[in-house]
Amino acid sequence: WARAVRGLLLDVSGVLYDSGGDGGVPIAGSMLALPRIKASGLKLRFCTNETQATREKFVKKLQGMGFDISVADVTAPAPAACRILKERSLRPHLLVHNDLVPEFAEIDKTNPNCVVIGDAAENFTYANLNEAFRVLTGLEKPVLISLGRGRYYKETDGLKLDVGAYMKALEYACDVQAEVVGKPAKMFFESALAEMGVPPQEAIMIGDDIVNDVGGAQRCGMRALQVRTGKYRPCDENHPHVKPDAYVNNLAEAVDVILQQL
Amino acid sequence: WARAVRGLLLDVSGVLYDSGGDGGVPIAGSMLALPRIKASGLKLRFCTNETQATREKFVKKLQGMGFDISVADVTAPAPAACRILKERSLRPHLLVHNDLVPEFAEIDKTNPNCVVIGDAAENFTYANLNEAFRVLTGLEKPVLISLGRGRYYKETDGLKLDVGAYMKALEYACDVQAEVVGKPAKMFFESALAEMGVPPQEAIMIGDDIVNDVGGAQRCGMRALQVRTGKYRPCDENHPHVKPDAYVNNLAEAVDVILQQL
Repeated sequence: WARAVRGLLLDVSGVLYDSGGDGGVPIAGSMLALPRIKASGLKLRFCTNETQATREKFVKKLQGMGFDISVADVTAPAPAACRILKERSLRPHLLVHNDLVPEFAEIDKTNPNCVVIGDAAENFTYANLNEAFRVLTGLEKPVLISLGRGRYYKETDGLKLDVGAYMKALEYACDVQAEVVGKPAKMFFESALAEMGVPPQEAIMIGDDIVNDVGGAQRCGMRALQVRTGKYRPCDENHPHVKPDAYVNNLAEAVDVILQQL
Repeated sequence: WARAVRGLLLDVSGVLYDSGGDGGVPIAGSMLALPRIKASGLKLRFCTNETQATREKFVKKLQGMGFDISVADVTAPAPAACRILKERSLRPHLLVHNDLVPEFAEIDKTNPNCVVIGDAAENFTYANLNEAFRVLTGLEKPVLISLGRGRYYKETDGLKLDVGAYMKALEYACDVQAEVVGKPAKMFFESALAEMGVPPQEAIMIGDDIVNDVGGAQRCGMRALQVRTGKYRPCDENHPHVKPDAYVNNLAEAVDVILQQL
């Protein structure tokens, strides 16, 4: 199944490293996997739902750990959201992590006519959620844009609720359906593929999230591997709807398997 | 439609008073409505989803405003939840308001095997929600009991997200369905009716919440009036599924209408 592969899309958190308060810890073998992919001639792109930092800051953190990665290699939700906001003349009220705010520097945020929610972490306070709710419920036609729909993720100090949980809270309170930017949205994978210049049939997604990485990529016509690192849990292998093209123990093994079959 | 009425169920917040940080403000005319109901011979019971305080404290607050109400007149979710916890040997992790905790004094809370969520207000912190999530996700069969499923309510300083929004966040993150205690659960209305000794066909519910008060009561075979106070919004009158038996401007008008037709 790995024949006719020209490009790899890699999730980052839970695949390259386990994130945590102090920056995170590389996953064994992942550091050496990246140069092997590049040496093989395969195209490589990082496709992340990370919204706790600007891409610049995110990439610096990874470089600091020793990963060979640059901003131009990363597809992330905030820039995609900015394109949508501009196209539709939307002025967001932001419920996002402080470190993500600079991505919206060029966006008019006065007199908001929509809410953008990201993984706000410590900014998910009772007061901030009430405020976002009041903005939405004060609009004649509430527009909620969510940077991902992840349920939870793993940090070094334990599992954390992800943006999707808070998105659901606001959806329910306002009786609206959020527009999701980021994985598993089809448009998001498609833009990552376009940036890489590879059609879906010739690309493989590698991720730890059975629904957002594996399911999302497969719905775009890509193949997808699930790594048994990060937020992976054994019960993922009994998922009622999503079945990866293969399981691998980690990124290093994924690269072994793919390069062997080229 | 008010003939053959023997009892009234009254919602409290948004019907008797508008709640707020400092206790709240009586709604015009509601203070005099209660003695008129009692003088008419109609049975009267308060049916509230209030979970920010014990019934004792809640009733004291109302008495302090001048309302003639006692603890024995109130049906509230926490005592109903305690009955369920005991019956099923469930040991809760509590995500509730500090002032509600005494209602669970007699319940074993060691080594939790379920989560009980109420309107925790300021206790709805990022850390507390992550903690509740971790308890649930660590259980082989997660059990989430929610003290109501309200979407929002109005306090004197604005609209606030209610327990239902946070219930949805945990439901989504854990892929579970909460068991709801409180309005609009049928069992909750039925226990209020039993305590009053009146069958549903001879009872009228008066509330400000189109779904939880009006819809819930009607599904039990009661009639229901919506007051245009509290969280009422004009768009409620176009609700796709729920239609009250009548609208009234406030509790005083509801009592006028009902007593006239007796």
